[in-house]
Amino acid sequence: MVDNLRVVVAAAGKGSRMGSSLNKQYLLLNGWPVLSYSLDFFERLRVVSQIVVVCAANEVDYCQQEVVKRFNFNKVTAVVPGGKERQDSVWLGLQQLPSDTDLVAVHDGARPLLSAEVIARLVAEAMEWGAAIPGIPSKDTVKLGDRDGFVRQTLDRTSVYAIQTPQVFNFNELLTAYREAREEGFLGTDDASLFERYIGRVKIVTGDYNNIKITTPEDMIVAAALLKR
Amino acid sequence: MVDNLRVVVAAAGKGSRMGSSLNKQYLLLNGWPVLSYSLDFFERLRVVSQIVVVCAANEVDYCQQEVVKRFNFNKVTAVVPGGKERQDSVWLGLQQLPSDTDLVAVHDGARPLLSAEVIARLVAEAMEWGAAIPGIPSKDTVKLGDRDGFVRQTLDRTSVYAIQTPQVFNFNELLTAYREAREEGFLGTDDASLFERYIGRVKIVTGDYNNIKITTPEDMIVAAALLKR
Repeated sequence: MVDNLRVVVAAAGKGSRMGSSLNKQYLLLNGWPVLSYSLDFFERLRVVSQIVVVCAANEVDYCQQEVVKRFNFNKVTAVVPGGKERQDSVWLGLQQLPSDTDLVAVHDGARPLLSAEVIARLVAEAMEWGAAIPGIPSKDTVKLGDRDGFVRQTLDRTSVYAIQTPQVFNFNELLTAYREAREEGFLGTDDASLFERYIGRVKIVTGDYNNIKITTPEDMIVAAALLKR
Repeated sequence: MVDNLRVVVAAAGKGSRMGSSLNKQYLLLNGWPVLSYSLDFFERLRVVSQIVVVCAANEVDYCQQEVVKRFNFNKVTAVVPGGKERQDSVWLGLQQLPSDTDLVAVHDGARPLLSAEVIARLVAEAMEWGAAIPGIPSKDTVKLGDRDGFVRQTLDRTSVYAIQTPQVFNFNELLTAYREAREEGFLGTDDASLFERYIGRVKIVTGDYNNIKITTPEDMIVAAALLKR
């Protein structure tokens, strides 16, 4: 097993669907900020040697004081301001990692419900293939819509995966992919999409249905119920 | 507005992912069977004139006694045994409806969290287009996987919809689609996929993130939390 997994946590997203002025990363979930759950998870995970948090520019101090210091997250070596898009933010986070980094995990701070089993699978597959991401078979039928709001295509359910984070990569290959995407001006929907475009195949490992992304106010209720369990 | 929306509720699914011997339709959710929520919803909905429930063959009596009679669902005119696949079950349910049926809604009994607003939208669009289904933009990135478990394609998130039920159709057109599918031996992933294949365009209307399908034990916790709200 790798012994220096480093982590970039993307926490700069505004979360316009939350209907709250406070960034969803700092909303209290059973009394703790949403972001603190994933930081706590990585802090306790032995394989993780370093964590970088990327924040909205005007929230760096808040994040540093109210989350990193308050909870004594010692593995967090930097809290840095993000860029315009999520992809710019992750790029800035990656700059904070040393060049001897073996594997990097990129995680969304809005996903508080992590599982050590999934990480173990991701690390093992990323070591073999260079890139591994968690995916779960979609419970719903998934269709593609056209611009007028009609169904264009119904997808074969057996091949459809809802993709989560953390996504784990060979660090140098991910850096290369990011550099090329920046040159080309390509904006991907997730980190893996850059790897797919510029480097090669990405392995899907079985994720966890609990690993939801906090997007709407209802998700806070759902996450709280799942956490209490 | 249409005045005789009829409903087929598909409740024959085994739910192998629940890890329970009792069919998920009859598990207690805040004290009531899962299935009773959608029946209660349709029972109270003025526009609905008739409901047919399709059950597993060995659960017809149980459903009739413990759900339909117990809760006095007077609009339920028949509880019938289903077939091998969900599609066979819906077909059997459709046979119970009179030929003067204008619109039919096909709903999964494992989705207890319905919304009257979504129904109103579905009915309006189905009257215009012959078929309307609820869809929500996917919160996760969606990818297609290949047989070896690698990413084959990352989908453009803006055109990806997670599709729910109820799905509302012009009754005669849906019957035609079902008949043709049975002749051809075509198995769709949902009712709309038959309409798409044999009749024409299907309109996607905005669904509700709360309208989850009970698939895993965690979904019971999530649904209970959303219902209590």
